[in-house]
Amino acid sequence: MSPEEFRKYGRAVVDWVADYMETVEDHPVRSRVKPGEIRSMLPLAPPAEGEEFDAILRDLDDVIMPGITHWQSPNFFAYFPANVSGPSILGELVSAALGVQGMMWITSPACTELETHVLDWLVDMLGLPERFRSTTAGGGVIQDTASSATLCALLAARERATSFAANASGVDRPLVAYTSSQAHSSVEKAMMIAGVGRERLRLVDVDGSFAMRPGALDAAIRRDVDAGGTPFFVCATVGTTSSTAIDPLPEIGRICRRSRLWLHVDAAMAGTAALCPEFRWIHDGLETADSYCFNPHKWMFTNFDCDCFWVADRAELINTLSILPEYLKNEATATGAVIDYRDWHIPLGRRFRALKLWFVIRSFGVEGLRRRVREHVRLAQDFARRVAADDRFELAVAPPLSLVCFRHVAGDETTGRLMDDLNDTGRVYLTHTRLGDALYIRMSIGQANTTEDHVDRAWALIDELAPR
Amino acid sequence: MSPEEFRKYGRAVVDWVADYMETVEDHPVRSRVKPGEIRSMLPLAPPAEGEEFDAILRDLDDVIMPGITHWQSPNFFAYFPANVSGPSILGELVSAALGVQGMMWITSPACTELETHVLDWLVDMLGLPERFRSTTAGGGVIQDTASSATLCALLAARERATSFAANASGVDRPLVAYTSSQAHSSVEKAMMIAGVGRERLRLVDVDGSFAMRPGALDAAIRRDVDAGGTPFFVCATVGTTSSTAIDPLPEIGRICRRSRLWLHVDAAMAGTAALCPEFRWIHDGLETADSYCFNPHKWMFTNFDCDCFWVADRAELINTLSILPEYLKNEATATGAVIDYRDWHIPLGRRFRALKLWFVIRSFGVEGLRRRVREHVRLAQDFARRVAADDRFELAVAPPLSLVCFRHVAGDETTGRLMDDLNDTGRVYLTHTRLGDALYIRMSIGQANTTEDHVDRAWALIDELAPR
Repeated sequence: MSPEEFRKYGRAVVDWVADYMETVEDHPVRSRVKPGEIRSMLPLAPPAEGEEFDAILRDLDDVIMPGITHWQSPNFFAYFPANVSGPSILGELVSAALGVQGMMWITSPACTELETHVLDWLVDMLGLPERFRSTTAGGGVIQDTASSATLCALLAARERATSFAANASGVDRPLVAYTSSQAHSSVEKAMMIAGVGRERLRLVDVDGSFAMRPGALDAAIRRDVDAGGTPFFVCATVGTTSSTAIDPLPEIGRICRRSRLWLHVDAAMAGTAALCPEFRWIHDGLETADSYCFNPHKWMFTNFDCDCFWVADRAELINTLSILPEYLKNEATATGAVIDYRDWHIPLGRRFRALKLWFVIRSFGVEGLRRRVREHVRLAQDFARRVAADDRFELAVAPPLSLVCFRHVAGDETTGRLMDDLNDTGRVYLTHTRLGDALYIRMSIGQANTTEDHVDRAWALIDELAPR
Repeated sequence: MSPEEFRKYGRAVVDWVADYMETVEDHPVRSRVKPGEIRSMLPLAPPAEGEEFDAILRDLDDVIMPGITHWQSPNFFAYFPANVSGPSILGELVSAALGVQGMMWITSPACTELETHVLDWLVDMLGLPERFRSTTAGGGVIQDTASSATLCALLAARERATSFAANASGVDRPLVAYTSSQAHSSVEKAMMIAGVGRERLRLVDVDGSFAMRPGALDAAIRRDVDAGGTPFFVCATVGTTSSTAIDPLPEIGRICRRSRLWLHVDAAMAGTAALCPEFRWIHDGLETADSYCFNPHKWMFTNFDCDCFWVADRAELINTLSILPEYLKNEATATGAVIDYRDWHIPLGRRFRALKLWFVIRSFGVEGLRRRVREHVRLAQDFARRVAADDRFELAVAPPLSLVCFRHVAGDETTGRLMDDLNDTGRVYLTHTRLGDALYIRMSIGQANTTEDHVDRAWALIDELAPR
């Protein structure tokens, strides 16, 4: 494809995207295809000679679109949002076209320096502790997902506890880690990947709001120490996946500090709320954390993948992950005057990750981002009030932010059937969780284009389909 | 940004990209900025209110471009290529706009099914063993990088050796892994991440072509077994980073089979060559491998990130990485009729990864891809002949494919100075490696738009600057 052809087909794709933005609500939110249906429309063998781009665009409509679940529909209330926005899409386009590698400063200095700069901006924007700023001993980096951020934090914690990279012959001590019973599955996955072991992860009890009980954490640590274990890592959650429960960071931080445990704070979804001063309380106590992450690819209008991860002491992270083979040596690295982000995460290569985030922050402005987040929270709180006022339903808890968990009082079966009926209409998509022993429907409000009308219509549908 | 604004600014960005494609050769290939220079042009604080998109595009030219090293320049001969192409960029654009999550089949069926399908196409295209096809016990998945693929292979190998996920309390046996002294740094990184330990990685001796000596591998394994160790994993390389050396897979495979060691084959750069029947010998012996990866984001015109990874027994991989919390349970997963790619890699979330690869394969066609790869190899072989015929230079080895390693006979200092002088012109960019005890310049030919003219001009420049 020549530059002239790119101009032509690029415009066609831009128009296709703009049309999609305008018509996304016409599709059933959750795809209706059966397993194997999409594959059955694809030719068994790849084409020997190149095809016209128009043919590919036609198949995008005919073959791919029926198999799409529309995460960008304002009627998408499932899981957590995975928002995109115009500026973010265009940032990704430029990043793809430049096609630079950002593994080291020298391989494209702007790629590294913009990332460091934008992550410093976010320290201001979210009111994060000063120790996460790159001008201190700390600093930020963009990871693909919170799963990878948690893994990196856990590896750095393992390093602190065992000097593993230096001594390097197997994790030979009974390390023990802690997170709440409501934490994300990625903590367990990280324990497994890091070779510490799933059984060495203590799932600490939660209180009535599904937040970690610091007393239970403290007791678990003491029990493990008495049994000869080596506690090394705590992952606290600001906004759990099930119900956006917020673990009490001040108390957890005090416990971690006492024993020099690494405290990682996972705010993947909820962190974005701290853009608004009135929600910044969610980060109370964060100043003692060793690491922290949140995902602009969830609620900050930046397309996947974009997880922002900070550490208070970057040397601890770099020492854990750094390997410098001959073919990567260069003068800039040797002087120590630059950041080489390859030492801050699992992969070696990395694309120009900060570009789309820079486009988003500049296009929306801090106030523009705040207005949208605030509105989502308002809509969720309104929705929760309607649920609470209807005696067919009960809330799991008063929702802290923009996720409302509710159930039909008739029990799990009715609640599950209601969710299925709602989703089968194609007009909304919601998913479920289990809190305590009961099934709850999760109404997650945060898609970029969700307005009061969409929430009103969703409520009307729930009202219509829920047995009286 | 409304859909109408997206139409307008999307066209502006498409034009910007097409202009960049047309003018990429006007820039010095390697960025000339000093550390801190890009950051110093960025405002200290993020904007409170949103800015016009035109202002952002202006800063892209004024602030970002000086800090770009032009990986898409046809005069880029450094590292390995990281190619993009028009169809691939537009595939990424569509993927960003759809913004779907592909963590499970249900979250966007097309995302999963197209990936499985295209990876089956590639089994045909590269002539890979049938056991990697999804219709057998095996199958393929797109990872971000070969580093992550190597890590996943190593984790699955650890699982086979220790039933770690099931028993789950620390890697308590002295596991030992093997790779050649020329292998990529990611093998060492994976050993460290997986908690097995860097010191448990044996760097096996290589022969005169820098390929692993099977006899040395065999001896190392026997030595470790005698010492009470548990050999579990071998990573063979098809095309090392230093010199594209190709490890002898048939002999290595036989050794691994004898002791049921997991054999992973890393063909990150060179694998693409197997598109051409005349280069398919690089994969001789691959039929005994447990896993294999290559990177379309290097030499197959698909923008980063896109690493294709296959396993012969997907159950071994899934058992290693699977965790299913309540909020992800769904009927399609429960029936077992679908693939959920979240269990095939480190992160949970994933974007629509296969789309750009599908665009590339269809736009180029298999023959179109072959023609370009073949031409790159021809240009490299021609270049090597010129180097060999000039008595100022010597080759490290006869280059197997498209990477030529050469040095000035006057030694390391002259060779290093020649490389710096070449790069300082801004007209080319080459990097170095160390083979044996000597410094070599790597001339890596594989950028999508590199033609005979570009290589001729690079040779003329080398001829001019190299001391006689």
